[in-house]
Amino acid sequence: MSAQPQDLIVPRINPDRLWDSLMTLARIGATPKGGVCRLALTELDRQGRDLVVGWLREAGCEIRIDAIGNVFGIRPGRLGNGLTGHGPDAQPVAEPTRRPVAVGSHVDTQPTGGRFDGNYGVLAGVEVLRALNDAGIVTERPLCVAIWTNEEGTRYTPVMMGSGVYAGAFTLAHCLDQVDREGVTVGKALAAVGYAGKDSAPRFSAYFEPHIEQGPVLEAEQITIGAVEGALGQRWFDATVTGQDAHAGPTPLAMRRDALLAAARMVQAVREIAESSPDYARGTVGQLFVHPNSRNVIPGRVEFTVDLRNASASTLDSMVRRLHEAAAQVERQDGVSIVLREVVHFPPCAFDPTLVGGIERHARALGHPVRRIASGAGHDAVYVARTCPTAMIFVPCENGISHNEIENVKPADLAAGADVLLQAMLETAGR
Amino acid sequence: MSAQPQDLIVPRINPDRLWDSLMTLARIGATPKGGVCRLALTELDRQGRDLVVGWLREAGCEIRIDAIGNVFGIRPGRLGNGLTGHGPDAQPVAEPTRRPVAVGSHVDTQPTGGRFDGNYGVLAGVEVLRALNDAGIVTERPLCVAIWTNEEGTRYTPVMMGSGVYAGAFTLAHCLDQVDREGVTVGKALAAVGYAGKDSAPRFSAYFEPHIEQGPVLEAEQITIGAVEGALGQRWFDATVTGQDAHAGPTPLAMRRDALLAAARMVQAVREIAESSPDYARGTVGQLFVHPNSRNVIPGRVEFTVDLRNASASTLDSMVRRLHEAAAQVERQDGVSIVLREVVHFPPCAFDPTLVGGIERHARALGHPVRRIASGAGHDAVYVARTCPTAMIFVPCENGISHNEIENVKPADLAAGADVLLQAMLETAGR
Repeated sequence: MSAQPQDLIVPRINPDRLWDSLMTLARIGATPKGGVCRLALTELDRQGRDLVVGWLREAGCEIRIDAIGNVFGIRPGRLGNGLTGHGPDAQPVAEPTRRPVAVGSHVDTQPTGGRFDGNYGVLAGVEVLRALNDAGIVTERPLCVAIWTNEEGTRYTPVMMGSGVYAGAFTLAHCLDQVDREGVTVGKALAAVGYAGKDSAPRFSAYFEPHIEQGPVLEAEQITIGAVEGALGQRWFDATVTGQDAHAGPTPLAMRRDALLAAARMVQAVREIAESSPDYARGTVGQLFVHPNSRNVIPGRVEFTVDLRNASASTLDSMVRRLHEAAAQVERQDGVSIVLREVVHFPPCAFDPTLVGGIERHARALGHPVRRIASGAGHDAVYVARTCPTAMIFVPCENGISHNEIENVKPADLAAGADVLLQAMLETAGR
Repeated sequence: MSAQPQDLIVPRINPDRLWDSLMTLARIGATPKGGVCRLALTELDRQGRDLVVGWLREAGCEIRIDAIGNVFGIRPGRLGNGLTGHGPDAQPVAEPTRRPVAVGSHVDTQPTGGRFDGNYGVLAGVEVLRALNDAGIVTERPLCVAIWTNEEGTRYTPVMMGSGVYAGAFTLAHCLDQVDREGVTVGKALAAVGYAGKDSAPRFSAYFEPHIEQGPVLEAEQITIGAVEGALGQRWFDATVTGQDAHAGPTPLAMRRDALLAAARMVQAVREIAESSPDYARGTVGQLFVHPNSRNVIPGRVEFTVDLRNASASTLDSMVRRLHEAAAQVERQDGVSIVLREVVHFPPCAFDPTLVGGIERHARALGHPVRRIASGAGHDAVYVARTCPTAMIFVPCENGISHNEIENVKPADLAAGADVLLQAMLETAGR
């Protein structure tokens, strides 16, 4: 590759165009309270996808749709489009170095979701292509913008369905057979909205996912760019405490087997385990049910959930060991039995150090405050990371609030994240 | 009063007759699981009342029914029947020493209630009269068996309605206007079952109430008779903890305002306050609701109840002070707000020391293991105690279980309690 005139240009994204695209997409499924309700594979999701696919075509992309409805807009590079030929039978090229540098996220939302979760990642990708078009830059490797099917998991489980199938975490057949509350399968819903594709999915040489933080850290520290080192592993438990119902009046304290008292000790233990663990530890009891839940009856049974998260698999395992130890101690102390049943075990995901370092470097070069951060929640990037070097770019969101109609982000922060994305993709794809 | 031949007899109740009466009454509203469902002022309640009223008439009682449906079966003594004349206009005699020595309880049950709660106190009274008839004993003061309306408070609130009206805790008009879920007033229900009486209620010189313990103490200590010193005072609170909802993944521990963590600390504080307080202290959180109650959302709001009980009013007040102090400390620790709203304030009730001492003495004389005990729950006796010297006699119940279809009591213990009652009434009424 020889130096060319375009090397002299440092392209920048157009903040107003990015904002306008976000607001245009947000009109589809807009809620009265300023949010968006655009559930996966509904008519509104179709309209949202069609809008973005139109923009991708206008930006010069060829569109591929796979069998789970993932959309890939591919902008060819000087080394081709990352595929052997065209059409449904085209396969990813053998050499990873000729494959697309991709960006993606999702355009489905929560039932009372916001305008930015997911949508930002996709439209930041669209804006990168537009900015490169404006600057007349063709990259060496192809570029790709991906829209993953059903990230939110509200209408259909599992969550992160499209990226999960892409990465081999779930089989296609299993996902196509999932039904919503009305009994409509994913397969039928895909056909109904016109996104039951037949194309093979491209493989990537690298994947970026810009996203709002959905947490309070960047805003609190007045930092614009989070260079995401990885996603926390998650181990979730259903806990059942069994004691003995009894009248609150006649039963002396020493004769009680109070399931709620025991559960209360466990809620504190979960917090203490997280507080004393390194590596971005989190511990949460979010759900708790009391039986019989009557004000003058000592509770005989309590069910609650435990959500432990950590960036290190070994620290996460040690948190789980301490959870079991705490349960054994509370069993002895309160004369109850505690059963812990693991319901989710999602290992920690470390993103690619080179890509993470690049994001940090580009942010600094552009003058944006940056810090390393972990993603506490799951994202499509966590699955895609199983297939290629991956990283995420976080931008702050107002009060850390997401999955809510009042979700809000500063336009300048959205632009900063997209500019960092542009530099990172350009460097990775070569110019 | 001169010594008569009947002084030589130490009368005893007939255990089989007492048991048979309990089982006969238990057939009215019997449930498939061995319990009883006989809600206040229903057709089944009427059948139960009619049965007992028939037994009282057979035992030589004149029946009076007051305007809230309380039934009084009066067995005249040598000093008369405690009333000035007969009929609706008869009034209690002026001299307390000529008034009846009474025994009573209730025959309404919980929806899935047992065969003994309430019913035992009334039928032990019936058996005392029968035993005295068998022995040919006429007491100096009259005797009375009382059936109080709607003790359970399941169909109509307030609980302990009949004894509460009798003692002036509630007005008659207020109680007659209460409605059940179908909108039927107490006044209409009383008329429908034929228990809207017009008689003035007799006043007592003393009142006894035998009852199953509804707790585990006597059984655990293998004691047959509880000489009840009084009933615990109760102060009940509704508590609301307000923190901040947030995602369990992205929100670092230091930035959380976890309402459930704070509530868990309060559950433990309630227990610790009770554990470190004298005078039969109890502290219970029986009901707790979490919002939004989702496994990966830090709870933003928790509502729970607090039930504090104590035999001493000043100790109970000190427990409440410590509850407020604990709330203030948890507010600071967890960055939440905690509102405590008092919903019930029922002062402790001390029973008459002479009557309590007599119960203890008679139990010993009859060879029954006895201990002093406090009633943790409310009973009609707590209201009646506002009008005359009062005491209760507890007998053990299986596993301390009550308000349950599996409620069970040993026939020998029921007989022991009725025998102690007989001696106590005989001594108090004079022979």
